[in-house]
Amino acid sequence: MGALKTVAVVGATGYTGQELIRLLLQHERINLAKVVSQSSHGKPLSQVYPNLARHTDLVCSDATIEELAEQVDLIFLALPHGHAASKVTSDILRKCKIIDLSADFRLKQKTDYVEWYHMDHANPALLHEAIYGLPELHRKSIAKSNLVANPGCYATCSILSLAPLLKADLIDTASIVIDAKSGASGAGRSTSLGMHFDEVDENFKAYSVASHRHTPEIEQELSSFTQNPLKVSFTPHLVPMNRGILVSAYANLKETRPDVRPLASEVFDVYRRFYQDEYFVRLFDNAEADYLFPETRWVKGSNFCDIGLTVDKRTNRVIVIGALDNLIKGAAGQAIQNMNLMFDWAETMALKQPSLFPG
Amino acid sequence: MGALKTVAVVGATGYTGQELIRLLLQHERINLAKVVSQSSHGKPLSQVYPNLARHTDLVCSDATIEELAEQVDLIFLALPHGHAASKVTSDILRKCKIIDLSADFRLKQKTDYVEWYHMDHANPALLHEAIYGLPELHRKSIAKSNLVANPGCYATCSILSLAPLLKADLIDTASIVIDAKSGASGAGRSTSLGMHFDEVDENFKAYSVASHRHTPEIEQELSSFTQNPLKVSFTPHLVPMNRGILVSAYANLKETRPDVRPLASEVFDVYRRFYQDEYFVRLFDNAEADYLFPETRWVKGSNFCDIGLTVDKRTNRVIVIGALDNLIKGAAGQAIQNMNLMFDWAETMALKQPSLFPG
Amino acid sequence: MGALKTVAVVGATGYTGQELIRLLLQHERINLAKVVSQSSHGKPLSQVYPNLARHTDLVCSDATIEELAEQVDLIFLALPHGHAASKVTSDILRKCKIIDLSADFRLKQKTDYVEWYHMDHANPALLHEAIYGLPELHRKSIAKSNLVANPGCYATCSILSLAPLLKADLIDTASIVIDAKSGASGAGRSTSLGMHFDEVDENFKAYSVASHRHTPEIEQELSSFTQNPLKVSFTPHLVPMNRGILVSAYANLKETRPDVRPLASEVFDVYRRFYQDEYFVRLFDNAEADYLFPETRWVKGSNFCDIGLTVDKRTNRVIVIGALDNLIKGAAGQAIQNMNLMFDWAETMALKQPSLFPG
Amino acid sequence: MGALKTVAVVGATGYTGQELIRLLLQHERINLAKVVSQSSHGKPLSQVYPNLARHTDLVCSDATIEELAEQVDLIFLALPHGHAASKVTSDILRKCKIIDLSADFRLKQKTDYVEWYHMDHANPALLHEAIYGLPELHRKSIAKSNLVANPGCYATCSILSLAPLLKADLIDTASIVIDAKSGASGAGRSTSLGMHFDEVDENFKAYSVASHRHTPEIEQELSSFTQNPLKVSFTPHLVPMNRGILVSAYANLKETRPDVRPLASEVFDVYRRFYQDEYFVRLFDNAEADYLFPETRWVKGSNFCDIGLTVDKRTNRVIVIGALDNLIKGAAGQAIQNMNLMFDWAETMALKQPSLFPG
Repeated sequence: MGALKTVAVVGATGYTGQELIRLLLQHERINLAKVVSQSSHGKPLSQVYPNLARHTDLVCSDATIEELAEQVDLIFLALPHGHAASKVTSDILRKCKIIDLSADFRLKQKTDYVEWYHMDHANPALLHEAIYGLPELHRKSIAKSNLVANPGCYATCSILSLAPLLKADLIDTASIVIDAKSGASGAGRSTSLGMHFDEVDENFKAYSVASHRHTPEIEQELSSFTQNPLKVSFTPHLVPMNRGILVSAYANLKETRPDVRPLASEVFDVYRRFYQDEYFVRLFDNAEADYLFPETRWVKGSNFCDIGLTVDKRTNRVIVIGALDNLIKGAAGQAIQNMNLMFDWAETMALKQPSLFPG
Repeated sequence: MGALKTVAVVGATGYTGQELIRLLLQHERINLAKVVSQSSHGKPLSQVYPNLARHTDLVCSDATIEELAEQVDLIFLALPHGHAASKVTSDILRKCKIIDLSADFRLKQKTDYVEWYHMDHANPALLHEAIYGLPELHRKSIAKSNLVANPGCYATCSILSLAPLLKADLIDTASIVIDAKSGASGAGRSTSLGMHFDEVDENFKAYSVASHRHTPEIEQELSSFTQNPLKVSFTPHLVPMNRGILVSAYANLKETRPDVRPLASEVFDVYRRFYQDEYFVRLFDNAEADYLFPETRWVKGSNFCDIGLTVDKRTNRVIVIGALDNLIKGAAGQAIQNMNLMFDWAETMALKQPSLFPG
Repeated sequence: MGALKTVAVVGATGYTGQELIRLLLQHERINLAKVVSQSSHGKPLSQVYPNLARHTDLVCSDATIEELAEQVDLIFLALPHGHAASKVTSDILRKCKIIDLSADFRLKQKTDYVEWYHMDHANPALLHEAIYGLPELHRKSIAKSNLVANPGCYATCSILSLAPLLKADLIDTASIVIDAKSGASGAGRSTSLGMHFDEVDENFKAYSVASHRHTPEIEQELSSFTQNPLKVSFTPHLVPMNRGILVSAYANLKETRPDVRPLASEVFDVYRRFYQDEYFVRLFDNAEADYLFPETRWVKGSNFCDIGLTVDKRTNRVIVIGALDNLIKGAAGQAIQNMNLMFDWAETMALKQPSLFPG
Repeated sequence: MGALKTVAVVGATGYTGQELIRLLLQHERINLAKVVSQSSHGKPLSQVYPNLARHTDLVCSDATIEELAEQVDLIFLALPHGHAASKVTSDILRKCKIIDLSADFRLKQKTDYVEWYHMDHANPALLHEAIYGLPELHRKSIAKSNLVANPGCYATCSILSLAPLLKADLIDTASIVIDAKSGASGAGRSTSLGMHFDEVDENFKAYSVASHRHTPEIEQELSSFTQNPLKVSFTPHLVPMNRGILVSAYANLKETRPDVRPLASEVFDVYRRFYQDEYFVRLFDNAEADYLFPETRWVKGSNFCDIGLTVDKRTNRVIVIGALDNLIKGAAGQAIQNMNLMFDWAETMALKQPSLFPG
């Protein structure tokens, strides 16, 4: 075993930051050297998050990214969008690796960023340097990169659920509807009336209908499998629970021969081939099993993305159900998976905890 | 004010039965004469449901439908499917009115019943006598009927959400995707592992994917607006909460002129016309309002169906969001709305309670 | 039936204000003339609370209490503590009745107010004019009063649970422990990290241990039955649900004769006598019933306070369980009960809705 | 590192069994050889619990304890009470170690078992051989034992919360009131109306008031610190959440000198001394911290028991708040802690995962 790598987490007291820290503290090759939080600067992390007592004595720092770049091998940025774009520079990237968990480096086209995030991009030159950090699609590029843009939670689940269909050219690319549902932690720890307990509990709602910012990520990545850029309808919903994303994706199956469309078993074959070497993607492909489709509970607390599907023969539509933990495979866990790749470690290191159930 | 009408509830101790009773106890024109429950026969209802203490001294009876038909003006049947079909006869219908809350008389085609419910229908002759009890579509027929088939909860929400689009011929009828979500009370009070608290809490899942029994109801009623029978993809999901259904429906807009598809405001005009006289349908059509789309919390405890929509211009798809309380507008409230029609009373009688919030 | 009484609600957009409005809209003797909200001034109430659409067209006003006093017969003040004390004057009370839902007029001793609320009282002269608005204890005084201090939610549940024991002199007054639990709506609609969804969901905690502000109310009212002032240990807890308070109260039974302490049945006799004419107090005193103790679900959405008890013979302690809906019997419902008394109407008017279950 | 120890879990598909397996799969010194479930015999465990897919290929067995005793070094019994008493024999204990997670071997007095469990004890001779498996009290005896009775979840939290007070003789032993609250997983995976989702969600209730079976365990263990056996009032409540126990314990402080009772800081000194070497007990003793008392969320998913306290000077009562995860420190985690002791391994092995938050 080589020397420990030194890492820092910026934005340490948000839910994603805390989750990163929780996982990093269990990583045997890592020295978590600095945790940065402007709001809690000077406080022991275990006072902000008493679950971390006994696990770390780290005190929240207000170090800048420039300062951190001199001290650590890799920085995780878990900040709202707009921050990373203005702070990450080529100079910093020469000194250390960056995994940015915001949206700032996910979109290849600056115009997409401007359109969906309603702000200019401070550092468009880096957009093409950054690698979209979805290991199941970009493993090799991630391993060689110094700047990884960690995907959005909804985007990860949507892309993994649909990519095999597009690669195999099984569906009408204009017919994709993604109906997504997330627990509340996806909204972060900033308070607002919309996330007040009594406004979320015992309620179910759609939000950002036809306008959610993960849409262009999904389209960018799925379009890499098609000749022409595709567009999807993406609608997120808020579930009264803490963690978990479930995506229900619909698309019209193409005819493979005149009037013949693939069976569910044939579609599953495509998925099995696509994901045959992927530890973190589990297929629900056993028609005899007790559970035919993924549920968020089976992934809660783990880095898995579970995928199931069926073919609705009456409408010739394939229906894919994907599930993951939005804070793990949808954020912090995937970031660590990317880090493992960037440091050439086993991709699963520190990420093999089974899901906590009931959780 | 005329004399009180006498009614009975059969299946009184299920969630729907109890909800019927709760609402009937607040109905000024009704004498709730009998509540029938085989499992709780002989017990005061307020022992099974302590919330009803002070409100009723009724004791659960095991009277048969034949006996009830001699004693009351109207019977509500809140039993699992299969029971009503075998118990309701023309003879009974000559003596009293029936509102059946099961699926037994909803489908016009016996073959649909057999296909989706996997059993023969005991009384197919009554299928064409029964009226599908959705007042917003069949008000006049309901008023004249002795046998009303109260719609399914998902079906009510789906049909009300989509009917205006079909009547106005705005969408491609082959493109309809209905992604529906329900609280747990829709599954009833019978215990099972799937409805055990720790299996539902903090979990979100799809179920009966492409195979849910409310599908043929939805297709039957929506097809009444089209030349050819349409088919929909319908996927229900279970939300970790007690009450409420939210439907997210997707369909491709037709061109109204070459390359021109309707705007959201034009689609809203269609809905406003369709529902202009409907007390129980509320449109979320104010683009300046705090809440642009329905949420289940605003209808919980009420008989409303709230509807909102938008047009996703990028994909030329209309997205309609509908919400209702599955036990009220989706079951017991709608049954009372039907009863009010059948007795020629104000349709809103005993149904004007505002939603309980936070609830 | 006489003319309608005109009322106003100040603090209309908090949870308690909204609940008052919801109930007042169902009150047949009331004209709800004004709803005041500084934060939502100018907005239709149904935009702030879409559940109220169809029920009211009222627009939030910023009228002052002085202005309202000229226009209405009664004002409900649903404001944070400190406001009512500074705004209610003898002059206003000559013009209209006031029901204050804050703590400002609950405590007879100004020193208690200063000690527990950490602020001076702006109008101590009114403290002895105000009546503590617990109808089960002070019905006659309330009926004659122009200023009613509506009790705290925890206080209502605690006092009703324990008063019979003290009146009958059954317990050691130094031994009272009240362990109370509440849903989140008791904390109001103001956002804070502590009430953020992910911080409350799937969590249970104690708060304000040995320091909650409802303590002096409880002691004041219970002491009215004893020779010497008593003190209680009162510990509230936060339950991850919207509504409901459950109080578990413990006290040592006195010997009625040497070495003889009362049986549960004898204690129940005392409660039955104490509450024999009270519509809104329901006793769980049937040892054969399915449910031996109150639960919050049976009162949710209703104005009832349910009470059950047992005697722990091993420790000679009586354990009393009380439950109510914190926003109804614990706030808005009780305020309307008080209003009914002040206007000499049936005490139960507009308050007889059964609890919503499952809710 | 020595050879792996071989273990089996009997009752593998209950919540406790599954939690044991989840933790054992992360234990580096263990070979989990057999998982026994009568109800799921022949099924892969990952079909019953899809969260365990990728983690184990074990298939549920119906091996008897006799058979297992020949094959493994240690058996965990996670069965309802009554089973272990009839199955564990001296002969089996000569062949392998047993950790029984039921109540069968917890009570030293057979009469206590008969009184509280309403059945005879099949093997009373083993009662005195068994060690009550609370490491913080009985570490050395556990290490030498072949039969460990794993404590009840409520009992663990109650005993750890109160033991220091009794050892230091700070309280009146007749004054102890324990008001306990638990998430639903404590009730296990067997379905019943009382644990049906809609009956638990949005509800709070007391149950087994003054009659819960963990009472005699608590009294037995706490009495070991006192001259005379003590009795407590113990009342459990059901919280609408999956995991977590919170205990609020009340007791009257003795005078240390005439009219002088200890301050909170002095009581904390006692707790610090008592738990100074205990990794799994964390004290909330920093009066400047953001969180003054334990909450269930900080222990969820971990093996910690968090303890905080205050002194209510007005009533001379100490109020202790304890929290733990009922399936971990309250069951499976503590069982593994005991196993680690019995095999002379580091007590914390496989038990150092931080709590999952938000969880």
